[in-house]
Amino acid sequence: MKRTTLCIVLLCITIAVTTNYNTYAGNRSKTYTVKGGVIHFKEPKRAKGQTSMLGFAAKPIENVRVGIIGLGMRGKGFAKRLTLIEGAEVVALCDLVQANLDSTQQRIKAAGGKRADEYIGEDSWKELCRRNDIDLVYIITPWLQHTPMAVYAMEHGKHVAIEVPAAMTVKECWQLVDTSERTRKHCMMLENCVYDHFELTTLNMAQQGLFGEIIHAEGGYIHNLDEFWHRYYDNWRLKYNQSHSGDVYATHGLGPVCFALNIHRGDRMTHLVSMDTDSWVGKEVAKRQLGANEFANGDHTSTLIRTHKGKTIELQHNVYTPQPYSRKYQLVGTKGFVNKYPSEGILLQQESMKDSGVAADHENLSSHRFLPKKHFDTLIEMYRHPIQTELMELAKRVGGHGGMDFIMDYRLIYCLRKGLPLDQDVYDAAEWSCIGELSAASIENRSMPVAVPDFTRGEWNKIKGHSFAR
Amino acid sequence: MKRTTLCIVLLCITIAVTTNYNTYAGNRSKTYTVKGGVIHFKEPKRAKGQTSMLGFAAKPIENVRVGIIGLGMRGKGFAKRLTLIEGAEVVALCDLVQANLDSTQQRIKAAGGKRADEYIGEDSWKELCRRNDIDLVYIITPWLQHTPMAVYAMEHGKHVAIEVPAAMTVKECWQLVDTSERTRKHCMMLENCVYDHFELTTLNMAQQGLFGEIIHAEGGYIHNLDEFWHRYYDNWRLKYNQSHSGDVYATHGLGPVCFALNIHRGDRMTHLVSMDTDSWVGKEVAKRQLGANEFANGDHTSTLIRTHKGKTIELQHNVYTPQPYSRKYQLVGTKGFVNKYPSEGILLQQESMKDSGVAADHENLSSHRFLPKKHFDTLIEMYRHPIQTELMELAKRVGGHGGMDFIMDYRLIYCLRKGLPLDQDVYDAAEWSCIGELSAASIENRSMPVAVPDFTRGEWNKIKGHSFAR
Repeated sequence: MKRTTLCIVLLCITIAVTTNYNTYAGNRSKTYTVKGGVIHFKEPKRAKGQTSMLGFAAKPIENVRVGIIGLGMRGKGFAKRLTLIEGAEVVALCDLVQANLDSTQQRIKAAGGKRADEYIGEDSWKELCRRNDIDLVYIITPWLQHTPMAVYAMEHGKHVAIEVPAAMTVKECWQLVDTSERTRKHCMMLENCVYDHFELTTLNMAQQGLFGEIIHAEGGYIHNLDEFWHRYYDNWRLKYNQSHSGDVYATHGLGPVCFALNIHRGDRMTHLVSMDTDSWVGKEVAKRQLGANEFANGDHTSTLIRTHKGKTIELQHNVYTPQPYSRKYQLVGTKGFVNKYPSEGILLQQESMKDSGVAADHENLSSHRFLPKKHFDTLIEMYRHPIQTELMELAKRVGGHGGMDFIMDYRLIYCLRKGLPLDQDVYDAAEWSCIGELSAASIENRSMPVAVPDFTRGEWNKIKGHSFAR
Repeated sequence: MKRTTLCIVLLCITIAVTTNYNTYAGNRSKTYTVKGGVIHFKEPKRAKGQTSMLGFAAKPIENVRVGIIGLGMRGKGFAKRLTLIEGAEVVALCDLVQANLDSTQQRIKAAGGKRADEYIGEDSWKELCRRNDIDLVYIITPWLQHTPMAVYAMEHGKHVAIEVPAAMTVKECWQLVDTSERTRKHCMMLENCVYDHFELTTLNMAQQGLFGEIIHAEGGYIHNLDEFWHRYYDNWRLKYNQSHSGDVYATHGLGPVCFALNIHRGDRMTHLVSMDTDSWVGKEVAKRQLGANEFANGDHTSTLIRTHKGKTIELQHNVYTPQPYSRKYQLVGTKGFVNKYPSEGILLQQESMKDSGVAADHENLSSHRFLPKKHFDTLIEMYRHPIQTELMELAKRVGGHGGMDFIMDYRLIYCLRKGLPLDQDVYDAAEWSCIGELSAASIENRSMPVAVPDFTRGEWNKIKGHSFAR
């Protein structure tokens, strides 16, 4: 990094740290109107010639050539896994730090791949995006760069895969949707938690009706980051939270429950309310690590979302206080119940248990207690998701979050090679990411309800149910 | 019951079943105003000569003479337990059903008590309340009768103990507060869950600072009542829910967390938002059991409450879908975390663990996982609440919800005999009960925020912290 660039970066940091977060709220209020006690963000009309990406499939790409921007905490792993996947090749890498490029090259080499071209420096990611021999760009950078980079990459003819959250404002969500619709390029958010073993298995159960109608679901991100903050390059995550209230990291909790509730595949989120605590721990950490005196992000943030079909979703965000790691993940159905944390459990109505053939007729199972282990294990085995069966062994060997990262990368490459719709489309990316700003707007207005934009522009009921294309 | 009375009762049932629940919402909207996007229920001024009941203590009553109204699912147990408590005597019983009176007399006899006077029939409870030889009236009747009976009893010079919820509307909450303040009679809600073993122990831990500042807490009532509805006399509970939305049964979840958060003892609830699902299971049950086509109470209701100090409380209500029983009960602190369901767990910051002397210096305890069982057990033993130590053995022998009902009755009689303030005052009763109507108002207005009335009328910061008088 040149000295002038460094100075600018340091200046930006100083401004970020000392910015009163009310500035954000003040600017935000210009982007919405309040009607009948409900906040409505502006919903731009679809531009002429631009069409829906629902069910979109690109032409098959036999050999998917990948460029990766951002090789910090997560990027290196992507490079390694993609190298191991048949039909994918990492051809270019971009980062600000040479050591990250070096260690990523080593991982690619160890996985049997060829040395990738290197891009280093502030604007070098644009050069990577402008190449003609890249099909797909992975964006694994700090949050604020996700949308600008993705838009640029799509405009230069690349499909994009973006780390969570894909966008940080409602405006950015619309930018992703509009750019994807206009350029006919895939825009997938890399929400890995939908591929976790328990989530996939119970999604399969849900789709086969085992829980009846799912009427309420919960998700969250409860992860005490106390010992992790400094690992984020230049402490960018703590700085972001320092100046932003709301559930800024909603997608891990929201993704799996949106699949189970068929969001924009038969139902849609209509409005939400959000409430946070003051900052206690976050403020202390920021004082210690950034010298900041204010901290916008409440230690604990809760959000309630309602759907068109009259269902509810509850989200929580807390990355500050000492708690066991949890993404909540709960499905409440008319005939059954699933809960993942602190331990996985399933409860089914007695008749459902007997219908499924798992329990014997004479067993007097309580509809008030989780299934005993033997029945739980049988069910988990019976309802293993087809894509799990295909991939489990391979994923476990290659690793990465118990296999879910690998399944995610594999599925993306698989669908691109076969010319299939992706598991997560640009509307998922927008819907799951918009919660950050919507929840902040609610919190800034004493928990006023906020309408959730319909990013499909009226087509949320066209596809019936989520499916993984095969 | 006479034939005319029976006809009137049947008529009332028919009206209740066929009443469109929008009527309730329509009438309710006359009792509040909307200011700045927030619903404010009317807050009556304190009448002249009426003074606060904060910290109120009545003159000691050596032998507490008790009358019990309502001997259905819960009343019989109260009669038995009170007979076993030194200094209490059940002198009168009231019910609509002779068989309930008979079986209660048998329980009193078996516990070594004298035969109580009997009151039977619709208005006979008033006669009981008018007696001059009763100090305390227990009201264990259907919800809609709680406040009218309590007001009448206080006006006739009796202290009252009311089953949960004590009041069903904000107006009734004020009636309890005003009547108690005017008559100088105790008005305690019988919220037993604050006396449960784990809640008492962890309250003690919280008060001793083990969890740091408690910034968020959760409570709820998740109990599939499918097999219980018909046990409520004339199905009154299902009928009530059939015509009322909102968290109609919030007190079991709210009580313990309000003690931990020192509500009206240094902090106060300022506003809430509530959201429910449509009715799926409730509607089916009501169709089957009542022939009703509409059902106001959503299957799953969630409420977020904020406090003056910037803390949050989350409540849930679901008495319909198959789920494991849960009152949630979670305390999120800056230095520790407690969770009760599905299994009890405590997590403390490493330094707190070492400070407490429970863990050794060399132990590398994770601040991301619950404490191992040996440390958990040690802590639970170390922090046993003084009133538990006193009563645990006796309570376990006598029974009733693992002892918490007995501790509750014992404490009430103990405080009355010693002339001490009660553990739960009339402001607790009002605060915990008002959630029913406040949440309904929020739900009827697309989750609009609702101000929580300050039933102490500005004195919520006078007492510092909750305590059990000794």
